Amino acid sequence: MPIHTAVQHDTAGAAHWAAPITDVSPAARLTAAEEARTLVDGQSRATLGTIALVPSGHPFGSVAPYALEADGTPVVLISRLAEHTRNLAADPRASLLVAAPLTFADPMDTGRVTLLGTATPVDDADVAAARETYLARHPDAAAYVDYGDFELWALHVEAVRWVGGFGRMAWCDPAAYRAARPDPIGRVADAALAHLNADHPDALLDIARAFTGYPDATSATAVRVDRHGIDLDISTPRGPASVRAPFARELAGATELRAASASLTGIARERLTSR
Amino acid sequence: MPIHTAVQHDTAGAAHWAAPITDVSPAARLTAAEEARTLVDGQSRATLGTIALVPSGHPFGSVAPYALEADGTPVVLISRLAEHTRNLAADPRASLLVAAPLTFADPMDTGRVTLLGTATPVDDADVAAARETYLARHPDAAAYVDYGDFELWALHVEAVRWVGGFGRMAWCDPAAYRAARPDPIGRVADAALAHLNADHPDALLDIARAFTGYPDATSATAVRVDRHGIDLDISTPRGPASVRAPFARELAGATELRAASASLTGIARERLTSR
Repeated sequence: MPIHTAVQHDTAGAAHWAAPITDVSPAARLTAAEEARTLVDGQSRATLGTIALVPSGHPFGSVAPYALEADGTPVVLISRLAEHTRNLAADPRASLLVAAPLTFADPMDTGRVTLLGTATPVDDADVAAARETYLARHPDAAAYVDYGDFELWALHVEAVRWVGGFGRMAWCDPAAYRAARPDPIGRVADAALAHLNADHPDALLDIARAFTGYPDATSATAVRVDRHGIDLDISTPRGPASVRAPFARELAGATELRAASASLTGIARERLTSR
Repeated sequence: MPIHTAVQHDTAGAAHWAAPITDVSPAARLTAAEEARTLVDGQSRATLGTIALVPSGHPFGSVAPYALEADGTPVVLISRLAEHTRNLAADPRASLLVAAPLTFADPMDTGRVTLLGTATPVDDADVAAARETYLARHPDAAAYVDYGDFELWALHVEAVRWVGGFGRMAWCDPAAYRAARPDPIGRVADAALAHLNADHPDALLDIARAFTGYPDATSATAVRVDRHGIDLDISTPRGPASVRAPFARELAGATELRAASASLTGIARERLTSR
């Protein structure tokens, strides 16, 4: 499945992207379905898209907290008094847009996922489990989950559009989305990136110089991290580049991230010293 | 135009809302159109709703930074390569959901506005002005605004759904939305609320006791502020309440907010002392 399907825009304006000086093997990446599933798993508030009754047929966006079933099916808790619920009762076609919080200057370079499908009230037999799933993610909703006008609805996902940022986007197979596990680093990734960039810029630079084909890198910023590796935006005297450094082995959980980053730094420094 | 159109849910669960002990005149409020216009003016990133080509007819949500023309018409900068632009080319019905950032625990008690209408590429004669409007709000977009695949589109607003939080919602007349000025306090409101709650809880409590019909208030948290007054969530021995304290006169700008709050506190303390 092609992940890089868009034109590679030169977002730095006049600057030109630098090519690698040395060859490196492509580092393993999350699949697009894993990227989508991880992003949706990490958030809990989205835009619910419905088809408006008034003005007729327009797409209607509203705010919807959600929780995920084990297969990635989103569950929302909505009031029969609300526009989106009236819309769904008339036309069950719906979507959920989940966007990562803004961490960088350009909002177009942050991840987002659109899940499209058919929304139905949760079956009576499944309400107890869905209620538990929802309240685990939204404990405050205990105050109104049992009001007579509130109801749990599930969005049965039929299509998945993932955009990771500039030039990283794909339609995902919905079955692959349902089968994908969220990346185990997902929920700590933003905090880890902030820590790496604030406290370990020298380590990131050494990692970039040793592993990514750019021994002339002069600065490196970590922009994404997952169980397979770290994405870095780097500067070189020849221009900027976006690169990826792989971990020595796939991480099984977030608790392994600190040791894996330290190990990667150590190996990078050995390599740079022996050059 | 009725602003309180929904069931008043008791969001505290078992607690009951306390009634005022003394009569007070209803304090002036923003109109629903002013509320909507202020919220949209204060943000710059929204969910663009379009009608999907695949799966056909589903509502499709995507992330869109936007800027506002003087009459509140949103302008977006979108790529012909992106799904939403392909969708709009086939069906111009669109919407923009603008949500206030999360500042309180429950995401359903924050403001949001859905603008619904027809999207069209900005007319050639208006592109220069729209480009300037957009770049003033999104200076980073200068890096790609002139790429051949990017184009400015305007959403011609035909319906406006505003939700201010629990029990505060309305459809606004689109002409009223276009004519409304953003509240002059709007862009500093969140910072002002944080400051009042962190540094002046005693002043807020005195204001609540003196002006809102609840002389028995025991705590007060400021939850909204505009040129007409301050909304407070208060506690009393009889239960919680949501109240409003009016400024002595309408504020013309954000710079008047500090003096008006101090003046309100002073008058409140005089009243409480003379009781």
